[in-house]
Amino acid sequence: MGTGVRRRMGVEERRQQLIKVALDLFSRRSPDEVSIDEIASAAGISRPLVYHYFPGKMSLYEAALTRAAEDLAGRFEEPHEGPLGARLLRVMGRFFDFVDEHGPGFSALMRGGPAVGSSATNALVDSVRQASYEQILSHLGITEAPARLELVVRSWISLVESTALIWLEGRRVPREELERQLVHDFGALAAVSAAYDPEMAAVVRTFVQNEPGDGPFAELAARLISLAS
Amino acid sequence: MGTGVRRRMGVEERRQQLIKVALDLFSRRSPDEVSIDEIASAAGISRPLVYHYFPGKMSLYEAALTRAAEDLAGRFEEPHEGPLGARLLRVMGRFFDFVDEHGPGFSALMRGGPAVGSSATNALVDSVRQASYEQILSHLGITEAPARLELVVRSWISLVESTALIWLEGRRVPREELERQLVHDFGALAAVSAAYDPEMAAVVRTFVQNEPGDGPFAELAARLISLAS
Repeated sequence: MGTGVRRRMGVEERRQQLIKVALDLFSRRSPDEVSIDEIASAAGISRPLVYHYFPGKMSLYEAALTRAAEDLAGRFEEPHEGPLGARLLRVMGRFFDFVDEHGPGFSALMRGGPAVGSSATNALVDSVRQASYEQILSHLGITEAPARLELVVRSWISLVESTALIWLEGRRVPREELERQLVHDFGALAAVSAAYDPEMAAVVRTFVQNEPGDGPFAELAARLISLAS
Repeated sequence: MGTGVRRRMGVEERRQQLIKVALDLFSRRSPDEVSIDEIASAAGISRPLVYHYFPGKMSLYEAALTRAAEDLAGRFEEPHEGPLGARLLRVMGRFFDFVDEHGPGFSALMRGGPAVGSSATNALVDSVRQASYEQILSHLGITEAPARLELVVRSWISLVESTALIWLEGRRVPREELERQLVHDFGALAAVSAAYDPEMAAVVRTFVQNEPGDGPFAELAARLISLAS
């Protein structure tokens, strides 16, 4: 009877099920610590049958991580409506949802390691970074970024990653605070660059002009002024 | 005669020579692209003799990367004298010297990859991050960092890394500008955190009080005020 149930599942459906089971296990423990036996057992099939759908451990892991990377890149998609600060805040909320759901898998993917540190997964992480970068640029209304803007946006994305990784270690700061802080950090890094570069100053002026008086950037400015006085 | 010259070099001396040759090659091309044959040829010895001193490619690469990591961690050491901004600026200068000297090797080490993405090299990179983190804390005069300060310092270190990696891609922004910008970024990230947290506000107030009127932080503040008006 068991094989009867199995036969009813098509190849693609079974592959998807195994990916889902793997991602579920990676959300609780690092991929390095999850064996094919565990994945087989959680999917209710035999170990050899897993290898029927995925020729090796790496191929199943890469398929799972590809799915996760697509999901993660999708979190950066945001309608082009309303002020930039509010958009970024929603993106950060969805990003931390992902980090929260996929904790150990996210850490392993970003930090590399025996089961995930391959060229293929590095390329996957780079593709997510590139997709997020292009998303942010599109919200700034810019297609060809000058060198300093590219640097600000890409280094901010890396700041977002490292903040999430540090947060996952002990969750010692509420995630809502970090989501808001990272939006502020974006403004702060852009402002530092703008302080010395007229091209960046023009970019910052454009987005600040569209910020409402009760938005995150205005609130930060008010708090910094009160802190300085 | 060739073997006669070789015999005069002791084991440790030969190992050090091979490490130096490997690091020199890694400064021009990624470790992934450098073969043991090339290292042997550049050192003027045979391939089997390289394996006599280092049992495998990975063991030589790890020894070279360990040396580089010690060098890198040393760049963060700075006397506890004078204002913090000036100290950080000197640290950034030495850090970019290292990045400049070791370009492809630095990128490969930080980004992982076939020849360098092992658990051992990941641990090495983490040890440099930890040493830099402790250095910065010691300059702030703090031994036990509250969660938010830990986050600011560690995420700033990751910002320093990613800025250097992006800079290496095309060196499109002068490195002196990035060194100063990263010092400013440290102040900006600390200020963002201080805007919402009294403990961080106290840390920021302490170091700002000791900054001279012509230091990097005062200059940034003046420029930001003029930008906002």
